[in-house]
Amino acid sequence: MKAIELSDFSLDGLRLVERPDPSPGQGQIVLRMRAASLNYRDLVITGGRYATFPLPVVAISDGVGEVVATGAGVRRFSVGDRVSPIYVTNWLDGALPADNMRRLGGPVDGVLAEYMVMSEEAAVRVPSHLSDVEAATLPVAGVTAWHSLFSLGSVQPGQTVLVQGTGGVSLFALLFARAAGAEVIVTSGSHEKLARAKALGAHHAINYREVPDWDRRVLEITRGRGADHVVDVAGGEELSRSINAASVGGAVYFIGFVRGPSSTISLLSSMRKAVRLQGVAVGHRASFEALVRAMELHAIHPVVYRVFPVSALREGLGYLEKGDHFGKVALSLDDFDAFRGSK
Amino acid sequence: MKAIELSDFSLDGLRLVERPDPSPGQGQIVLRMRAASLNYRDLVITGGRYATFPLPVVAISDGVGEVVATGAGVRRFSVGDRVSPIYVTNWLDGALPADNMRRLGGPVDGVLAEYMVMSEEAAVRVPSHLSDVEAATLPVAGVTAWHSLFSLGSVQPGQTVLVQGTGGVSLFALLFARAAGAEVIVTSGSHEKLARAKALGAHHAINYREVPDWDRRVLEITRGRGADHVVDVAGGEELSRSINAASVGGAVYFIGFVRGPSSTISLLSSMRKAVRLQGVAVGHRASFEALVRAMELHAIHPVVYRVFPVSALREGLGYLEKGDHFGKVALSLDDFDAFRGSK
Amino acid sequence: MKAIELSDFSLDGLRLVERPDPSPGQGQIVLRMRAASLNYRDLVITGGRYATFPLPVVAISDGVGEVVATGAGVRRFSVGDRVSPIYVTNWLDGALPADNMRRLGGPVDGVLAEYMVMSEEAAVRVPSHLSDVEAATLPVAGVTAWHSLFSLGSVQPGQTVLVQGTGGVSLFALLFARAAGAEVIVTSGSHEKLARAKALGAHHAINYREVPDWDRRVLEITRGRGADHVVDVAGGEELSRSINAASVGGAVYFIGFVRGPSSTISLLSSMRKAVRLQGVAVGHRASFEALVRAMELHAIHPVVYRVFPVSALREGLGYLEKGDHFGKVALSLDDFDAFRGSK
Amino acid sequence: MKAIELSDFSLDGLRLVERPDPSPGQGQIVLRMRAASLNYRDLVITGGRYATFPLPVVAISDGVGEVVATGAGVRRFSVGDRVSPIYVTNWLDGALPADNMRRLGGPVDGVLAEYMVMSEEAAVRVPSHLSDVEAATLPVAGVTAWHSLFSLGSVQPGQTVLVQGTGGVSLFALLFARAAGAEVIVTSGSHEKLARAKALGAHHAINYREVPDWDRRVLEITRGRGADHVVDVAGGEELSRSINAASVGGAVYFIGFVRGPSSTISLLSSMRKAVRLQGVAVGHRASFEALVRAMELHAIHPVVYRVFPVSALREGLGYLEKGDHFGKVALSLDDFDAFRGSK
Repeated sequence: MKAIELSDFSLDGLRLVERPDPSPGQGQIVLRMRAASLNYRDLVITGGRYATFPLPVVAISDGVGEVVATGAGVRRFSVGDRVSPIYVTNWLDGALPADNMRRLGGPVDGVLAEYMVMSEEAAVRVPSHLSDVEAATLPVAGVTAWHSLFSLGSVQPGQTVLVQGTGGVSLFALLFARAAGAEVIVTSGSHEKLARAKALGAHHAINYREVPDWDRRVLEITRGRGADHVVDVAGGEELSRSINAASVGGAVYFIGFVRGPSSTISLLSSMRKAVRLQGVAVGHRASFEALVRAMELHAIHPVVYRVFPVSALREGLGYLEKGDHFGKVALSLDDFDAFRGSK
Repeated sequence: MKAIELSDFSLDGLRLVERPDPSPGQGQIVLRMRAASLNYRDLVITGGRYATFPLPVVAISDGVGEVVATGAGVRRFSVGDRVSPIYVTNWLDGALPADNMRRLGGPVDGVLAEYMVMSEEAAVRVPSHLSDVEAATLPVAGVTAWHSLFSLGSVQPGQTVLVQGTGGVSLFALLFARAAGAEVIVTSGSHEKLARAKALGAHHAINYREVPDWDRRVLEITRGRGADHVVDVAGGEELSRSINAASVGGAVYFIGFVRGPSSTISLLSSMRKAVRLQGVAVGHRASFEALVRAMELHAIHPVVYRVFPVSALREGLGYLEKGDHFGKVALSLDDFDAFRGSK
Repeated sequence: MKAIELSDFSLDGLRLVERPDPSPGQGQIVLRMRAASLNYRDLVITGGRYATFPLPVVAISDGVGEVVATGAGVRRFSVGDRVSPIYVTNWLDGALPADNMRRLGGPVDGVLAEYMVMSEEAAVRVPSHLSDVEAATLPVAGVTAWHSLFSLGSVQPGQTVLVQGTGGVSLFALLFARAAGAEVIVTSGSHEKLARAKALGAHHAINYREVPDWDRRVLEITRGRGADHVVDVAGGEELSRSINAASVGGAVYFIGFVRGPSSTISLLSSMRKAVRLQGVAVGHRASFEALVRAMELHAIHPVVYRVFPVSALREGLGYLEKGDHFGKVALSLDDFDAFRGSK
Repeated sequence: MKAIELSDFSLDGLRLVERPDPSPGQGQIVLRMRAASLNYRDLVITGGRYATFPLPVVAISDGVGEVVATGAGVRRFSVGDRVSPIYVTNWLDGALPADNMRRLGGPVDGVLAEYMVMSEEAAVRVPSHLSDVEAATLPVAGVTAWHSLFSLGSVQPGQTVLVQGTGGVSLFALLFARAAGAEVIVTSGSHEKLARAKALGAHHAINYREVPDWDRRVLEITRGRGADHVVDVAGGEELSRSINAASVGGAVYFIGFVRGPSSTISLLSSMRKAVRLQGVAVGHRASFEALVRAMELHAIHPVVYRVFPVSALREGLGYLEKGDHFGKVALSLDDFDAFRGSK
């Protein structure tokens, strides 16, 4: 079969290879892969800014495929089911395991291959109303948003959820918070993106270029209460504003760090408001399965910004790098051979 | 001022009396009462089937009034605010206090009076979009439903909530579960009521007269998963069906016992599914305040079945006894004097 | 290799067989089994009172062995490690999975074999200070007690834990509750057993033969508060007393049903005190691992009542049936051949 | 009666005054004050580094007194009971209220007075085995430690708790974590203090002067797991080490900031380990009451470093400032008049 491996930690390290076709062992399933999606982490890895791990590995963590073979004893899936492999392959439920580095796209082989084999326990049936490309956006971005709001946090109707930006995780958080009956505030530097976020259901939109002290604006909107849940993808020195914008007893989820990987925070503010600052490491299979039920019940569709053929993988990563996307950048996994000549 | 007291544990024990007008002490507020609503508990008390307590007490636990005076140091409310006293007067948040018998309508004076005085801590501002009569339905029925689903439980989008019947608590549970993005199943013995429940947002309706093994029907609807949350108001021997209808790891909330105050349950089923059976004792002020935010955000209106003048109190209790209501039976508190001749 | 299978649901259905020696697949480990222990469930299964499942299966759920071979990719264990297989083989953490019937000793092959093969994820390193026989008592009885008190509940120093009886789970609950700084009350029908329970750390002992209304005695001991946590192994009509003995907001864990598999409970009491009745289905791997850390830190030893050679399996089950044991009945797995002639 | 007020935000602003003797209103109690203790917050207030509030107020937040009068309707206490007022006077249980500035010692009158009046709901009976001075150390330092470990966190036997330093909160955390069966690691810059901490029950001691990368030492001690709970009183740039020392899924409680009120933290580390950073704002009455039960059951005594007469208040604050104390600095409230000439 064809696959795209990362052979060194650079964009040029991505290369088309031939690998043996997998066959299912006891309790295993084999997927014919259909679509994939890109995450900031994929950029960090190909940029060599992630912890290193042995190479080569099949690239990219998020994908969806169709079950084409099942090993003995498999009972969760049948041939023909459409499923996604889970990102941390041994995290089914509960607390993040201490041994949590079995992550797809490195160090464990990822999804950019014609076929993938895995334990049936490490896969989830995807929502039936989604296209392959839509379904491929769920494993990291969708699950991170869900896990933050409903497994680490517990969003209730009438609570306020503040979502920073309009990238993949942020728009999932917007959609899920709405489904849960929350009041949603979105920040962005673009009026056009804010308008689209409102069209997706956000109650309030703040342009942080015009309102640099957007934390104060959140307090105004909430009549001084602050946001019960803050989905922080900015990091950097903006994190202080997230803490300011949080309610007494509120939570700030660390999801990303596009403004910088470290932050200076005020302990005094955090203590006075008894705020909880929660690091988020994607999420478990149980979050993924709960997300599927909610998306199906509410017919929620992910926001797909652009779909590239797998051969345009590097171009897709480039879009992500620019940071101009609204939602997810995805790949269709049809024509691996075309990758050959790509640069 | 005028008030209606319970002087002995019977319907005839309700009588119109004159009491001194209250004035606010430090940290206290005085309300001019506007409306009240009736609960099954009021029936149980006037029927002498509740634990006894010293009489007389001002009758009925749920009401709404307008702040007409504030004592020194009051900061939660101003004159003109419309508020409800909370039912367990010293339960603000967290676990039910061991000392939890300070309950309105007995042993503590209730709401059927022209004026009421209380600590500002023991009152909650009611939603501004509700009429007085609508707001008066919240303190016990609304809070019980909210507390079950969001303080004891934690309903998430895509989960299934099973609601028994169409009384006050049940319809609140229906409305709140919908607001939280859950899939709602309602049971009733009346097609007409089921149709109305669906109009309010229920996804599925089961007529238990036609489908006595409604637990199996719940399992079919949920494709074998069962309901994540079961709001049980029936009690009696129906409780076993609630356990059968619950999902693995699901919760059954004991709210009422219209089919009987004791139940025979299967320990084996409860253990196999790791079901949680949770007694519910109304709820705390924090649940009430969260409910207010949710109702305002979603413009939710309680279902008021009938409104009686306070003079027709006994007739209202009679309606409740019949069990034929759909939603809440309420009272307007305008003309206490008319009660005099009533029987 | 030798193994003892259950070939039909009766004591006589237990028979010695020859099975092929297992070898480890990817991610799997092979154990040389050393010891086992017996649970009430084993009796229920051999008595045909459990749900049926396909036969034959290797009998008995709880055991300990030494890793003698590891498959490719195994990272949790090395040859020589002493580990126990977990009881519900796919329950690692979090909520009980809906698909939870992969249980050892039926339907999944159990521990009475010279060798056992399993996923490395489905095993836990046992405490180093325990003998093989002691370690073999943990997977069901130890984990059930731990999971109840620390995963479903959350015992704190100064809380009161009521433990019924002196069987396997109960004595583990006693030991773990003590380690957590709780006040422990034990009930039993035997003065001698109560004396031994006090020697193990129980603060209070109640002989239910002399004090049939032991629930009132619990309220006296706790000055009216009741027990925060009740470990109920009796079931049957004694369950009502457990509810009476629980504190406001307390929890009753359904662990067993030696007095009967169904109970009549008062909904009114459960509601008034907001008691939680929690079905317990053993526990997950994370509970097992937490238990190991606690037992090692505190050098806790399980209470082993009697050790039989595997050939005396039926005699061991008979001891359990009599219900006269204090702690666990265990088996050493040395001489399978001797089983041949046993009856 | 005599009282010591803060009249401006400075040490010289402390002055002896005469105030009217209080009498109890409905639901209130009057205490004859017996002892007090000092907290870092008292220093911050008298140093003008806390948020300002209207002056004068009676100084100091923590004290204990004897009930000498009760108002109508009081049921929690009787004359003669020894109780402590709670620090946040309207926080009984659950989440920190948004309106949480009703704090003793400013803006609300504190404990340095001959008599104090308060709602019976705002007081807690103190452990009977403690002296007045010992009991006076509980309301802020004891409750902060308890609330962190058992209300915000949930320490279990066998978990690891890392405690920084040997001040008031830290030693309470040590004692409570031990009572809960945890493994305790203490850091300090003094060998003598570490020796005393080990005598109090700490399993491991790290001298951060000799081992500046004490986070690595914690990982060694825990064989790579890290501490499940980190009680951080240092703040400043040491906070990063706390995050490093925490386990996957672990919690760091922000209690103090003796090394600085702001910290630079790594978002990446926090995310990778899914660490929770939790601001702590003392704790609620329910934590205080749970603490009392645990201290009584285990006969735990607070560590009192030095006791001053109330007249030496400024000297006591000076001791605190030096930061050389091991445990709590307390005051006996016998001779207010002697304060007059003090400087």
